[in-house]
Amino acid sequence: MNILIAGAGAVGGYYGCLLWKTGIKVSYLVTEKSLPVIRDNGITVKSKGEVWTFHPKVSVNPSDLTPCDLIIIAVKRYSTEDVLNKLQPFIREDTLILPLQNGVDSEEEILKRFPDSQVLGGIAFIGAKLEETGVIIHHGAGSLSIGELDGKESDRVKDVVRIFKDAGVPAKLSTDILKGKWKKLCWNAVFNPLSVILNGPIEYILDSKDALNIVYGIFNEIRSLAEKKGIILSEGLMDEHINVTQKLRGYHTSMYEDFIKGRPTEIDYFNGYVCREGTKHNLPVPVNCTITSLVKAISCTHIS
Amino acid sequence: MNILIAGAGAVGGYYGCLLWKTGIKVSYLVTEKSLPVIRDNGITVKSKGEVWTFHPKVSVNPSDLTPCDLIIIAVKRYSTEDVLNKLQPFIREDTLILPLQNGVDSEEEILKRFPDSQVLGGIAFIGAKLEETGVIIHHGAGSLSIGELDGKESDRVKDVVRIFKDAGVPAKLSTDILKGKWKKLCWNAVFNPLSVILNGPIEYILDSKDALNIVYGIFNEIRSLAEKKGIILSEGLMDEHINVTQKLRGYHTSMYEDFIKGRPTEIDYFNGYVCREGTKHNLPVPVNCTITSLVKAISCTHIS
Repeated sequence: MNILIAGAGAVGGYYGCLLWKTGIKVSYLVTEKSLPVIRDNGITVKSKGEVWTFHPKVSVNPSDLTPCDLIIIAVKRYSTEDVLNKLQPFIREDTLILPLQNGVDSEEEILKRFPDSQVLGGIAFIGAKLEETGVIIHHGAGSLSIGELDGKESDRVKDVVRIFKDAGVPAKLSTDILKGKWKKLCWNAVFNPLSVILNGPIEYILDSKDALNIVYGIFNEIRSLAEKKGIILSEGLMDEHINVTQKLRGYHTSMYEDFIKGRPTEIDYFNGYVCREGTKHNLPVPVNCTITSLVKAISCTHIS
Repeated sequence: MNILIAGAGAVGGYYGCLLWKTGIKVSYLVTEKSLPVIRDNGITVKSKGEVWTFHPKVSVNPSDLTPCDLIIIAVKRYSTEDVLNKLQPFIREDTLILPLQNGVDSEEEILKRFPDSQVLGGIAFIGAKLEETGVIIHHGAGSLSIGELDGKESDRVKDVVRIFKDAGVPAKLSTDILKGKWKKLCWNAVFNPLSVILNGPIEYILDSKDALNIVYGIFNEIRSLAEKKGIILSEGLMDEHINVTQKLRGYHTSMYEDFIKGRPTEIDYFNGYVCREGTKHNLPVPVNCTITSLVKAISCTHIS
């Protein structure tokens, strides 16, 4: 199987490395800026004392990299449209597309251009970050859920899951991948923006009863919105998230990392998405809208 | 007229100095901590190149300072209850009480203990801050509105206004002092907490369209709450506030000053009041509740 990965960040770089180690041909679609670095130095993954460097085929032009059987979209959510514009002419009828991105609307955006027969849903849980272009630090975890959007256990989705399993990834087939993405959104839309606003690690949120008030304010609105879209999230989901997150007390969220480095954040695809969709569905989501505006205002003053 | 001022901060210190210059006997009720400093050094006001120091009668015990004709409550809002506890035994039937405090519920709190015949309403607009105990820096402004709670132009309120006017304060008699306090609340509940959350001067708010979204979110909720209480605020009030505030671009709000110095903030009497009263009146005020929780969470992590 030939796999094209769009984006050589933490997610694309880490999974690509594991797939490459099993002998799979992995090629990377990257930006103009990253191209010379990755062409010259390859991609390096540092994980628990081990270091691997591999030199995949890499280009800014999909025509150099296709044909392929599976395309993994692993760019930041706000770069999806750019990447789809580039890829569109090179995607065959039987090419599978698997977005591994935050937010719950990647699949929706991809479906606007390609039939749903081509799009899988995916959720990556991975403690990794980009140290510099082409260099990924992996701290822990790395599980992956993949599923057909209609929940079926098709042969092709089983194949994709098996490839990852063979590479050592704790991958599993999900029969309700969209619900899984909403569950992850609840974590993302809570811990990411609050870590930016409180300017610190996860424990700043976990240890403040005032911050926890807002956590539940954000969550309850997302839960109501999900219900409007036919996705039932359990009332106790946020408690579960909080319990699990106690293990990550000193952790800096990806949005916080983006924020302190002056990079764009994914706020528009977390709370910003909730704010837009809430308005569209006539559902009041003022906490998410306020949080969205605050992160944007803070990012702006911080960058200037 | 004998005047007792509770609190020798920016407001109490500045007005007390102007009254003292006209020969009025001003005495101060202060905290244990401030007492030795003010007893030894007096109160100093620095204003536009001029410096005045005066040595008023000062005590932690009202019995040393009464009887008096007028009591000005000029402590931070959260210290009101303490001060009223101390003063209660020494207040005569004809003693007037004039709170000059932020928020809209000082009068309400004082009325719980004293008949409304004793309580006036007041609003101080003053650009002053406490440099250190007993030392006040006055930057500009200093106007004062004073009124009977029922709006009447009584002789006694005219007398109080005249005393301030004679001292050079641009004081005026207000026939709708509660509405004036709500108008000021709209400014306070917007610029104070947002300056803490955005960690900077007023211009951080004025220059961010995202922050301005929240400004109007806070304001619209306060306007609805005021209406429930029979106070009609004009739709354009926040635009007026923003226009006037353009002159204060580099200004740090009093809440920001309190925050960076690790002192308690008045959030419970601005957005926190709106949050509590909204809940009581069954009116959703999620933006004010979110902002309240955020300022508390930020203050907490900042202080620790």
